[in-house]
Amino acid sequence: MVSEPNTPGGSPARPVASVRYELLTLGDELLLGLTANGHLTFIGAQLGRRGALLRRNVTITDEADAIAAQFRESWARSDVVITTGGLGPTCDDRTREVIAGMIGQRLVFDPAVERAMQERFARFGRKMTENNLKQAYVFERGEVLANANGTAPGLWAEQDGKVLVMLPGPPNELQPMFLEQVVPRLAARGLLEAREAYVQLRTAGIGESALETRLQPFFTPHGTALSVAFCAHQGAVDCRISSPGGELSHARLEEIAAECALSLGEDFVCYGHDSLARVCADLLRQQEKRLAVAEAATGGMLANAFSEVSGACKFFAGGVVCSSNDAMSLLLDVPESLLQQHGAVSEEAAVALATGAAETLGADYTLAVSGFAGASETGAGSSPVGTIFIGLHSPAGVWAKKLSYPGPRGTVKVRAVNAALDWLRRELVRAARGGVTTQRRSNVMR
Amino acid sequence: MVSEPNTPGGSPARPVASVRYELLTLGDELLLGLTANGHLTFIGAQLGRRGALLRRNVTITDEADAIAAQFRESWARSDVVITTGGLGPTCDDRTREVIAGMIGQRLVFDPAVERAMQERFARFGRKMTENNLKQAYVFERGEVLANANGTAPGLWAEQDGKVLVMLPGPPNELQPMFLEQVVPRLAARGLLEAREAYVQLRTAGIGESALETRLQPFFTPHGTALSVAFCAHQGAVDCRISSPGGELSHARLEEIAAECALSLGEDFVCYGHDSLARVCADLLRQQEKRLAVAEAATGGMLANAFSEVSGACKFFAGGVVCSSNDAMSLLLDVPESLLQQHGAVSEEAAVALATGAAETLGADYTLAVSGFAGASETGAGSSPVGTIFIGLHSPAGVWAKKLSYPGPRGTVKVRAVNAALDWLRRELVRAARGGVTTQRRSNVMR
Repeated sequence: MVSEPNTPGGSPARPVASVRYELLTLGDELLLGLTANGHLTFIGAQLGRRGALLRRNVTITDEADAIAAQFRESWARSDVVITTGGLGPTCDDRTREVIAGMIGQRLVFDPAVERAMQERFARFGRKMTENNLKQAYVFERGEVLANANGTAPGLWAEQDGKVLVMLPGPPNELQPMFLEQVVPRLAARGLLEAREAYVQLRTAGIGESALETRLQPFFTPHGTALSVAFCAHQGAVDCRISSPGGELSHARLEEIAAECALSLGEDFVCYGHDSLARVCADLLRQQEKRLAVAEAATGGMLANAFSEVSGACKFFAGGVVCSSNDAMSLLLDVPESLLQQHGAVSEEAAVALATGAAETLGADYTLAVSGFAGASETGAGSSPVGTIFIGLHSPAGVWAKKLSYPGPRGTVKVRAVNAALDWLRRELVRAARGGVTTQRRSNVMR
Repeated sequence: MVSEPNTPGGSPARPVASVRYELLTLGDELLLGLTANGHLTFIGAQLGRRGALLRRNVTITDEADAIAAQFRESWARSDVVITTGGLGPTCDDRTREVIAGMIGQRLVFDPAVERAMQERFARFGRKMTENNLKQAYVFERGEVLANANGTAPGLWAEQDGKVLVMLPGPPNELQPMFLEQVVPRLAARGLLEAREAYVQLRTAGIGESALETRLQPFFTPHGTALSVAFCAHQGAVDCRISSPGGELSHARLEEIAAECALSLGEDFVCYGHDSLARVCADLLRQQEKRLAVAEAATGGMLANAFSEVSGACKFFAGGVVCSSNDAMSLLLDVPESLLQQHGAVSEEAAVALATGAAETLGADYTLAVSGFAGASETGAGSSPVGTIFIGLHSPAGVWAKKLSYPGPRGTVKVRAVNAALDWLRRELVRAARGGVTTQRRSNVMR
């Protein structure tokens, strides 16, 4: 496979989807549940974007015997094996030595790697200890993947018609290395598509089966030339269309996706992978509007969703987290009488919070979330756990709506955040179209 | 092994640490990076607490052939195999059938499971569709693990001296099932310790190697009877002590841990697994004090840490997220002149935020976090990315300190939240002791 590269400008010698990828994640901390296996999530998603399906992920201990036994099996059955972890300077980092032995490679000292490490230590004003030199040993017949954010370089080797990629464990070292050095190398050898293999439509406010029913008419004419996959998240459903056999060009896929998007109207969020907060942020910046939030049930998660967007201070004034009725009155001038009459978990309170945040922070749009996300919070005779009220203030008015989610506290919070973001997104889309009045979706409070 | 159970009241027939556990997580959504593999984190941690190390986790596709091939290998080399996912009602949920075939079990219809499903559907006012009945087929020679939060029950079988546990995929179904039904069954057969196998000391504010040096004198006298393991999180280090050979009783381990805790002083956080926010919450409730927070750099994460604690409204007044200087002035009366003179990322601003939050929300203690967590936020000539200022207001005064963290935005935010929580915890511990004046750890601003 490696010995039969892509014919330049032509189609791959072999369909990318048939390439057998396997990921070995090494480390006791993963098996002891001390660290989440984010490498699986990251690498699986990146391969998927370029048309490849990770066939298997195996997590094993750092022990040399376990690594050797597992690597032997994985190498025999795969076209590409990717390992993570075990490349560091300490004595329990022996992955490099064990695997070099298994594939019959000598490890040789690379002065360029030593120089890069020396420079890195000097930049941070630290002295490099002797054990770091271990990381300068690389495959005799292979390539070095430079590490811009750490000391241990990654390693790349091609032999027996297979590819071996060894990556360091820290995510901030692994991720840019994978995107900038591994993906282009794999694509150049026809083991990944040269570009994203599918066109993804992200939707919100519509269930998976309803989405499938609505989009089917756009897919049916293309028969087996078109492959369609749906994936539901909490509050969003993605639809990916691709043409694994290559019958439909990427431009044609984009046209089909555009027809779907048009038909979906406001339920269409974006092409690709942007978060709801990111999509809202772009709309707010385009319209030069400012946002603020007031949260009770979501405890800071809604504000945090916006603070994850780069340059948030340009459009996001700030937020208020009200764990107590006092905070609602003190920070946002919500009348105590209103809270006494209707309760803090009510449409009235959600409207008052949204209005208070808009007035206090001088924002054009505000979102408010009140409710009972977890079991300890309900009072006698009040709404059941999972009851959420969302308030939205816009230049066109202020509204609230009631929602209800099953599940544990964490799930209810995420669903409430996504529902609030999606409501804001729809209002911003309508405002961008202009002239369209805000659609009443619940009781109008004022 | 299963055929040689624990002698009642005696020591296990076989050390728990030598039992070979393997976890098979099934699902394309894991391999495509659409869902994080939380089952590994959860089950790995739970086994670890009871003295067992998960040997391997394998994630594979839902495909019948892949499941069959992987299960055969895993079953042959393990004492206990746990599977997750693939037990649902749809046609691609075939794990039950495939694995039953591999271990030579017949699947038989269980009317009690059907009844439980019917009751569940009735409770939610929905009609049960025919395909759900598939979930009522269970091992002829085995046990059913009831599912309190979903339709598909778990399955338990013992044969060939091995244990097979099959669990449904949704975490809110799997986790209580594992804790309430699987752990007790495994412990009764001597495959897990009957209680937590170690005593854990959680510490903060001290590095892993410094902690080891400080505690070594307490461990050395016990020689090989005592096993010690350290685990560093972001801002906290756990130390677990155990006696794998059983030479030291659990009571003796607790005595040794108590000696360590006493010697660590304020660097000791708690025994066990409580979060820093939870420890602070307990101290605040004991002292009947109220807390508020003001965040810029952490965007809502600090407030959210407290809102995750059950009953937070009892001690947590609320929080303010200031993405802009305006918000600091509008919500917390931070003087604009102060922000202009010193900047929003300064000790002065952190002190003003902490003071403003205390005064506005009537809180006894407040934490404030200002800083540059991500790359887009630095202005020309200002502090570098990773610079964080934490402000603390207590009944004894108000202080700020400067910290600096490397790494991406997410890491900086988590470290800043943990540093703020740990500072609050120390102040509350000192206040509980009484009479001890607040130790000056940075510039006193007022």
